[in-house]
Amino acid sequence: MAPVAYDYLTDGSEIYRESFRIIREETNLERFPDDVSRVVVRMVHASAATDLADDVDFTPGVVAAANAALRAGAPILCDSSMVATGIIRSRLPRDNDVICHIKDPALAELAAARSMTKTMAAVDLWLPRLEGAVVAIGNAPTALFRLLEVVAETGVRPAAVVGIPVGFVGAAESKAALAANELGLEYLVVHGRRGGSALTVAAVNAIASVDELTNTSRQEG
Amino acid sequence: MAPVAYDYLTDGSEIYRESFRIIREETNLERFPDDVSRVVVRMVHASAATDLADDVDFTPGVVAAANAALRAGAPILCDSSMVATGIIRSRLPRDNDVICHIKDPALAELAAARSMTKTMAAVDLWLPRLEGAVVAIGNAPTALFRLLEVVAETGVRPAAVVGIPVGFVGAAESKAALAANELGLEYLVVHGRRGGSALTVAAVNAIASVDELTNTSRQEG
Repeated sequence: MAPVAYDYLTDGSEIYRESFRIIREETNLERFPDDVSRVVVRMVHASAATDLADDVDFTPGVVAAANAALRAGAPILCDSSMVATGIIRSRLPRDNDVICHIKDPALAELAAARSMTKTMAAVDLWLPRLEGAVVAIGNAPTALFRLLEVVAETGVRPAAVVGIPVGFVGAAESKAALAANELGLEYLVVHGRRGGSALTVAAVNAIASVDELTNTSRQEG
Repeated sequence: MAPVAYDYLTDGSEIYRESFRIIREETNLERFPDDVSRVVVRMVHASAATDLADDVDFTPGVVAAANAALRAGAPILCDSSMVATGIIRSRLPRDNDVICHIKDPALAELAAARSMTKTMAAVDLWLPRLEGAVVAIGNAPTALFRLLEVVAETGVRPAAVVGIPVGFVGAAESKAALAANELGLEYLVVHGRRGGSALTVAAVNAIASVDELTNTSRQEG
């Protein structure tokens, strides 16, 4: 076959620098405190959507609270396997547990018994580890709704909630409910339909470590 | 604490039906053949972005070719761990291998020796399994560029390429290069900056099985 030559950057660090330069040029970050701004930059990087920043809502203390919890050894509770996989273990300060129950074989039965989605039943299983934990929801609106119910019912409270489920049914509503919570929850959300595991992973990895310009800070590690 | 009551759908199948109803109502699917349309619906579902469909480009035979390859036992070659994790094993017709080298400890050294990104070096490691495989690139533009080079250099050809890397540097260009390929590659891309592991996983899972209305067809399995 004829040789094909493509002209593209092949140096990981150079790709990072150029990406972040474009993001900071095109994204309106003015309203964010410095620590939140750094997290939003990573979320824009993961989605390649600069207008995503306009839909971010947060409590001013969310990044500090989540980072402090991780430094204290708190677990990260995830609603999906893709979120759990994407969290880069080498960035975690205390070899923190990353917990996801969605592939637990007993889950279908538990969900049926409680008339819930499997995702909701998986949230119920978080309870023994929920106090002071970092919650990362990147897929299912029902997980976020269920979390709010569990916190309200038990008084057990996570240190911070990264709540970025995606979808057409309940996603926007669940994030609005988190942002309106009167439970004292620190939160980071992306309002509307958009969300997903990549955004959630980007946020958690950025919260865990300030290291920006390395290949190992990429979503898949 | 005061009880909190949220009104939301908790039946997985009902959530699916309502989601797909909204997608079909809001998305322009007219230009797609039936089998590609079904895949695009899942991609819109994963991203919650109906305008994504407008950026999809494809060869008319891509879904049939990829599905036939899977039914013949072909492996799925992935550029990121999140893509590999999201592929639902129970949907694969032949217990197909899902291969991702990105966490191979030897990769950093190989990449340095070849002056490449780790992602590119991981593509080089696909070569013994590349002929007739299904390629799923959901993260790195350099993986897609490198794939095109490897195919051109070796004449070894995968059955189909789901090429949906995301980002500000090289993503749009790499997908344009795939769509312009004269190597006879069947492809499915989302032009522009948008892409990612969730979209890629949604496409592969939809290609693997026509089963739509089940919880197990959700991205995280």
